[in-house]
Amino acid sequence: MAGKVFFSVSMSLDGFSAPEQRDQDPKLERWMAQWMELQAWIFPLRFFRENLKLGEGGEQGRDNDIARETFERTGASILGRRMFDFGERAWPAEAPFHTPVFVLTHNRRDPWERPGGTTFHFVDDGIHRALERAREAAGDRDVRIAGGSETILQYVNAGLVDEFSIALAPVLFGSGTRLFDGVDASKVALEPIRSEASTRVTHLTYSVRPR
Amino acid sequence: MAGKVFFSVSMSLDGFSAPEQRDQDPKLERWMAQWMELQAWIFPLRFFRENLKLGEGGEQGRDNDIARETFERTGASILGRRMFDFGERAWPAEAPFHTPVFVLTHNRRDPWERPGGTTFHFVDDGIHRALERAREAAGDRDVRIAGGSETILQYVNAGLVDEFSIALAPVLFGSGTRLFDGVDASKVALEPIRSEASTRVTHLTYSVRPR
Repeated sequence: MAGKVFFSVSMSLDGFSAPEQRDQDPKLERWMAQWMELQAWIFPLRFFRENLKLGEGGEQGRDNDIARETFERTGASILGRRMFDFGERAWPAEAPFHTPVFVLTHNRRDPWERPGGTTFHFVDDGIHRALERAREAAGDRDVRIAGGSETILQYVNAGLVDEFSIALAPVLFGSGTRLFDGVDASKVALEPIRSEASTRVTHLTYSVRPR
Repeated sequence: MAGKVFFSVSMSLDGFSAPEQRDQDPKLERWMAQWMELQAWIFPLRFFRENLKLGEGGEQGRDNDIARETFERTGASILGRRMFDFGERAWPAEAPFHTPVFVLTHNRRDPWERPGGTTFHFVDDGIHRALERAREAAGDRDVRIAGGSETILQYVNAGLVDEFSIALAPVLFGSGTRLFDGVDASKVALEPIRSEASTRVTHLTYSVRPR
């Protein structure tokens, strides 16, 4: 049985999945501070520490289980080019995917194998083809559209996303990158699957249906 | 003991508290359809039917309790002028507030008493003065900033809101009036108080703190 196609991101209460673009914002400190607030629920988790080999310890509990479940269901990921470029500088050598990752790009490049099981494949023939290859690689596990939000929206608007999860953070950004900016609302209906509050965020899961 | 100042609105997952402005949208049907989707959790409730005298019946359960609690805690409401203008045409003679309502306006007008306990008072000397009068009228009950979103944001940005609740609806609008558009994010910190899912929406409650 084929897996699902999903995304899972943190979002501010006013709908932003990232602070204002770094290259438009002279205050990198402010960007980092906002980004840390958005992701604040993840850093203390045992799973996060394990996955990035930051050492022992970390919190257990429902947030941790959810982060681990999201990781474990994922057989392959799809990344937009800009998120890859950013991550290429930010991730440790042992990149945090530990699965095949398909990067949407216009430039051909040989696969890039990292220690720990992550291999980046560069796909220059469109989002459908990238998904085909990701599905094949994932087997019966799920394909995660890992981001950024522009890539996520391309897949949502093409009707290719089955479900998604949002960790809704108790923070207002006022500006930044809106997760759903450009969504084709006339085509997308949502069905709530689960809503679960932890002490830090509310985890919302929806399935996506054509309208 | 003085009551709290709060607001309570329905919001789409992408952050809209109203569909695109009616007077900019030639398709009133579409506006109504979106608005109905946003408020869909309210119409079937027993409290909603009671409050508007629509007759017997209606659903009980947690959504209904929340709608009733919101009504019962409210000792006075504050309305922006545009929302009042809209409501003046839309509400039945027995307007749904059943308490004093303070309308922010630039035009003097005598108080307008409606059957069923709603009296509209027109305040032309600013949001602080309107709140003073509403607090006085509310006694130890709470003051609700009833809307629209522009009025809500004026009070949030002035540091005058203690807490708020959002009924997060499983719908994407893509366009419309954003609840938090113009929020002064550098001054507003949120603390999650409660998050509770019903079958139709997720009820989120936050308290507001200065940053």
